[in-house]
Amino acid sequence: MIPIILLENSNGLTDCPGFKAAGAACDVRELGDMERLDLAMVAADKPCSAAGVFTLNDICAAPVRLCKEILPRSGNKVAGFVANSGNANAATGEQGMADAKEMGALAQLSSGIGAPFLVCSTGRIGRKLPMERVESGIQTAAGKLSDDAQSSLNAADAILTSDTRRKVATAQFNFEGQTVTVSGMAKGAGMIEPNMATMLAFLTTDVIANSEQLKHVLTAAVNQTFNRISVDGDMSTNDTVLLFANGKSGVDPWDGPADLLFAFKEAVFKVCERLAELIVGDGEKVTKLVELMVQGCPRVQDAEKVARTVGNSLLVKASWYGSDPNWGRLASAAGDASVGLKEELLDIHYDDVPALLKGVPQDTRVADWKAVVAKKRFRITINLNQGNRDFRLLTSDLSEAYVNFNKSE
Amino acid sequence: MIPIILLENSNGLTDCPGFKAAGAACDVRELGDMERLDLAMVAADKPCSAAGVFTLNDICAAPVRLCKEILPRSGNKVAGFVANSGNANAATGEQGMADAKEMGALAQLSSGIGAPFLVCSTGRIGRKLPMERVESGIQTAAGKLSDDAQSSLNAADAILTSDTRRKVATAQFNFEGQTVTVSGMAKGAGMIEPNMATMLAFLTTDVIANSEQLKHVLTAAVNQTFNRISVDGDMSTNDTVLLFANGKSGVDPWDGPADLLFAFKEAVFKVCERLAELIVGDGEKVTKLVELMVQGCPRVQDAEKVARTVGNSLLVKASWYGSDPNWGRLASAAGDASVGLKEELLDIHYDDVPALLKGVPQDTRVADWKAVVAKKRFRITINLNQGNRDFRLLTSDLSEAYVNFNKSE
Repeated sequence: MIPIILLENSNGLTDCPGFKAAGAACDVRELGDMERLDLAMVAADKPCSAAGVFTLNDICAAPVRLCKEILPRSGNKVAGFVANSGNANAATGEQGMADAKEMGALAQLSSGIGAPFLVCSTGRIGRKLPMERVESGIQTAAGKLSDDAQSSLNAADAILTSDTRRKVATAQFNFEGQTVTVSGMAKGAGMIEPNMATMLAFLTTDVIANSEQLKHVLTAAVNQTFNRISVDGDMSTNDTVLLFANGKSGVDPWDGPADLLFAFKEAVFKVCERLAELIVGDGEKVTKLVELMVQGCPRVQDAEKVARTVGNSLLVKASWYGSDPNWGRLASAAGDASVGLKEELLDIHYDDVPALLKGVPQDTRVADWKAVVAKKRFRITINLNQGNRDFRLLTSDLSEAYVNFNKSE
Repeated sequence: MIPIILLENSNGLTDCPGFKAAGAACDVRELGDMERLDLAMVAADKPCSAAGVFTLNDICAAPVRLCKEILPRSGNKVAGFVANSGNANAATGEQGMADAKEMGALAQLSSGIGAPFLVCSTGRIGRKLPMERVESGIQTAAGKLSDDAQSSLNAADAILTSDTRRKVATAQFNFEGQTVTVSGMAKGAGMIEPNMATMLAFLTTDVIANSEQLKHVLTAAVNQTFNRISVDGDMSTNDTVLLFANGKSGVDPWDGPADLLFAFKEAVFKVCERLAELIVGDGEKVTKLVELMVQGCPRVQDAEKVARTVGNSLLVKASWYGSDPNWGRLASAAGDASVGLKEELLDIHYDDVPALLKGVPQDTRVADWKAVVAKKRFRITINLNQGNRDFRLLTSDLSEAYVNFNKSE
């Protein structure tokens, strides 16, 4: 087993050698604010491999459709990506697609790299991109591309929307004296649910890999991390996770011992996991983080259905917000998943404190339940005792401030 | 066509001849409040036919299981029902079932009617019924059974939980000089979603019918009404709709012209529809009522999936609360249903004002959109233009007060 180290202080994408980044401010929101960074650009020193995982929403934003087009067409060698916040370029028709292409073309022109740029957007739906502003932002960013820490952090800041905190992570491991790096940055906040709603994440690595290999590793990591978090149950039109590999370390995980490939997969997983936790923890007006473990199901899909039904129940989430150990709502929501749960077999625990054992309330433990749900982060285990499959969902409470925050845009 | 009249002023279940009702206060909530009515009893003058539709939650409350047992066993001739609010008798194990049976037995004993009573409970989950209180309530109610209006209204009040208003409805029609009546009462408020979450509804009629006939008519009406309303997307452990028929009018809808049976079905439908609207309109801390019409789908189940995904989206509901005509969130939520929606075919209207036509925003109408969503009740039509099937969902906004109200119990 090759040990993986998650850096204490990540600087985001340029922690990985061979990548440059920049953030620029171009007032995409058209609020007269030229201070807020809203355009990110990241490029490899030379064209690199890439893979992406995208939203399953029937309505794909133009940049998502463009990325899906570019990735196969280019044999997956790309320059990097350009991303704006403040406008999702979604539900914008043919003009939206033309604008997304223009963003990519201009990034390529400005940076002078002979490969296409992937394009991402996040923000308000249904409004045309202010292209003059975006274009000036791309030109500014291209002129500032650098591998220093601040440029990388600027890029991480530029993709944020209602996030309150920057989200970066870096994992490293050593193989035969060579350090291998996987770095990442993300934005989340609202509309977080399966399939990564209004979530963007970008990863860079210096392994040698082709796009099929990257896609395989990325898909597995996304399924175990970004697809197992939920803030409000909505899936957006723009969700995108991209992974870029420039080969700079000289290490090829597919050409070495099994441990090496495992270490690379684990590094990608750990960066995704860390970013996913940062996203839920910074969910819009979230006050509690809840790790929901559903166990003892006949099938994984049953466990997932129970977890998502419980984790998205407004009544359950409101009770977490109120620090109310209302296991009745948990049980009712679990039953609502209609997977054939048997009440007389059901166990529910708050952290390690039993609330329900084989359907029987453990009322003498009320004070202990309350102590658990009063915490900022706790675990709820729901065991159906009807099989051995499980599912873990990282979710959050629902606050009054969430509703207030989202009542208009 | 026999015209159906929905009475302006319904008094609930005793509007139907041959039924008596009563409400009693027995402090089921154990709060020392002996004023609040919390036990309802309704009985036919002699054993009558009955049918029920129940929750699909895997966790059925004891009274739900008991009703399902009694209905077939008694050949469906029953005395009536007894119902308490304040405690759901759900997740209460074997003791819960014994308590539910005891409630029914005591109702039968106290009323002196030689047929079983159906039993319903609503309120907090996971707490044992305070049986001494419930028993005294049943005895009090049995002694007060009457066909007068006040007794009927008392019964309607006794089943309420977080409801702010009594919910009653009565439909009548005339067949060959004979008046036929269908009356109803209901409680709703929280956890309202498909399959009638934490919702109780009771209907009485004076037609001649057996339980199979009643079940057929009731199921059809429930599917078109109570199963097409949503407040917060949760389905409860206790949802029950019961229909009682005492034959007192002498009219047999299955032994007459087709018009007659149609009129009876329509009367049951109209009472259910009215009660369903009252439930959504009185949803916990609801400020807006939204009629969501999804049209142009290849299959009804697609239309239903789109309607439920949009109608339960927190972001959509929060925007309604804020009177924000955010059609982008509507489109994104519709796409989230993953039924194969094509953005370039999508129409969205606020009442009759177009917001999106074939995927193109109708931005010149912004002021008109705003005027519509500022209303207390409005209609949103989402047309996929990919078929001719539709689905209508009556739903509501999500307010800060909802979260505050539900943060503890």
